[in-house]
Amino acid sequence: MKYRIGADIGGTGIKVGIVDENHAIVRRTSLKTPGTFEESMEALRDMVSELAEQVGIKVSDLASVGVGAPSTVNPKTGRLVFSNNTNWKDVPIMDVLRSLFPIPVYFGNDADCAVIGETLAGAARGRKHVLMITLGTGVGGGIIIEGKLFCGGDRQGAEIGHTPLIYNGKQCSCGIKGCLEAYASATALIEQTAEAISAHPESAMAAWVKENGEINGKTAFECAKSGDETAIAVVEQYTSYVAAGLGGFINTFRPDLIIIGGGVSRAGDYLLDKIRSHLPESTYAIDILGAPELKTAMLGNDAGIIGAAFLDQM
Amino acid sequence: MKYRIGADIGGTGIKVGIVDENHAIVRRTSLKTPGTFEESMEALRDMVSELAEQVGIKVSDLASVGVGAPSTVNPKTGRLVFSNNTNWKDVPIMDVLRSLFPIPVYFGNDADCAVIGETLAGAARGRKHVLMITLGTGVGGGIIIEGKLFCGGDRQGAEIGHTPLIYNGKQCSCGIKGCLEAYASATALIEQTAEAISAHPESAMAAWVKENGEINGKTAFECAKSGDETAIAVVEQYTSYVAAGLGGFINTFRPDLIIIGGGVSRAGDYLLDKIRSHLPESTYAIDILGAPELKTAMLGNDAGIIGAAFLDQM
Repeated sequence: MKYRIGADIGGTGIKVGIVDENHAIVRRTSLKTPGTFEESMEALRDMVSELAEQVGIKVSDLASVGVGAPSTVNPKTGRLVFSNNTNWKDVPIMDVLRSLFPIPVYFGNDADCAVIGETLAGAARGRKHVLMITLGTGVGGGIIIEGKLFCGGDRQGAEIGHTPLIYNGKQCSCGIKGCLEAYASATALIEQTAEAISAHPESAMAAWVKENGEINGKTAFECAKSGDETAIAVVEQYTSYVAAGLGGFINTFRPDLIIIGGGVSRAGDYLLDKIRSHLPESTYAIDILGAPELKTAMLGNDAGIIGAAFLDQM
Repeated sequence: MKYRIGADIGGTGIKVGIVDENHAIVRRTSLKTPGTFEESMEALRDMVSELAEQVGIKVSDLASVGVGAPSTVNPKTGRLVFSNNTNWKDVPIMDVLRSLFPIPVYFGNDADCAVIGETLAGAARGRKHVLMITLGTGVGGGIIIEGKLFCGGDRQGAEIGHTPLIYNGKQCSCGIKGCLEAYASATALIEQTAEAISAHPESAMAAWVKENGEINGKTAFECAKSGDETAIAVVEQYTSYVAAGLGGFINTFRPDLIIIGGGVSRAGDYLLDKIRSHLPESTYAIDILGAPELKTAMLGNDAGIIGAAFLDQM
């Protein structure tokens, strides 16, 4: 059995797993993300050594190390362009990874790793045309077409969170106005929920928040399920935004399966049903061409680890 | 020398060319599009015979017949889904083409044919990552990534005119609200020009239209070049819409060249400069990742004929 390393480095934590040929994580470890790029890389080296030891092999016996993070690497220079979550900018990540490990190293965008993981071992297993969208702090995406990861011309594309939803609309954290992320992220949902509560202090959702503490990405969905009209309106509007974004991607990418990941996806079938009901508003010729299947992600954070481990396969 | 046939069937005309191995159209013929699908197919058969005769060969000596039209064919059924310009719906086009011609037949979306033509013989010659957008009656698009035509999962995608620009915005002819096409087509530009003239009857543009007759896609650009502020405002707004759409596609597809085709592209460098100036409003990390080159299309209608002839090569 040949083992691979998959690492998922985000703004809050570094999660590393040792993954077998059947796409199963056999050992894992994690750490709070250190302050600098150099410290993160050293931490990664130590975590990999620790995992190799746990399964009784040397690092040099591993097949590869794959790293996913919320950014992209310019394949010509091997430099990571920019990651505002980890505060890395223009760092020579491929050179550093090569210097740390005596085995092949790979880097991928974290959302790309997630869709690879879900396709190899999760909700999209065996599927060839998959679009995964993650509704979390931001909106990320990964796309598989004809069984291959789609990364665009310079391998730095598929930034689907930063396509327009409302021209000249709300300011997005990326600097552009009106991106899908500014309306469809969990962060945006929380804002939309807070605004609805301010406007409707008499609503059951306002009372629920007073009782249960702070507003989060579940608040509107929980209260909508209980029949509160204010919450239902928030959910309808939010899922209509998500569907509008997805409609554009369907018209362009024609996936036959869409996987919804990220924190918001915990709303499950209720979320999927609402998104599905709004797809005809934004999907070209849906009556003739049909709509792709919608599923929630299955593997949670593991998808990023498994996908990073198998970056070279997609 | 082996010849191929390329045909471009639109709402107004059928244009057919015989194309040599160097991507040059050596003979051509055209006809007003007949009323029905069957009549169009018979006309195509006759036009192909006529062209073959002109170069002194039999139809069976041709390498292939490729047809482009504003629709897509489901590769599983060989049926053309829907073309509102030609009023064809769910027709068995591949079976009909096979029955008419004793040589290999191919079908492609007309915008896909145009980008293939420009890539083989026009403004994108030798380029590997190209996005072409046509700003005409509608907004069409064709995408080449890694030297291959990108058509999405079921080969019916890349409908880039029908991605959202303004969620729940203006009604698009496709049935969806707020599509890029509703703001960035020549049709939309004419509407925007007419609205500006109504609002500013004192403007030089209003006087220009009174003198030169009806408003068209050139009106605002011509008057803007002469310094009319009303026209300049129309051009700035219109090119900002186009740039916003392109920004989203850049973030997703990362082409290194964008080709602007369709009637509006006749505004040339002035159009390109304005679009370029608006790209930073909508292109993710443009300061780090840069922006693709912008060019206008070179081949006009010939691109669709040449591209259709070489559909099997991309």
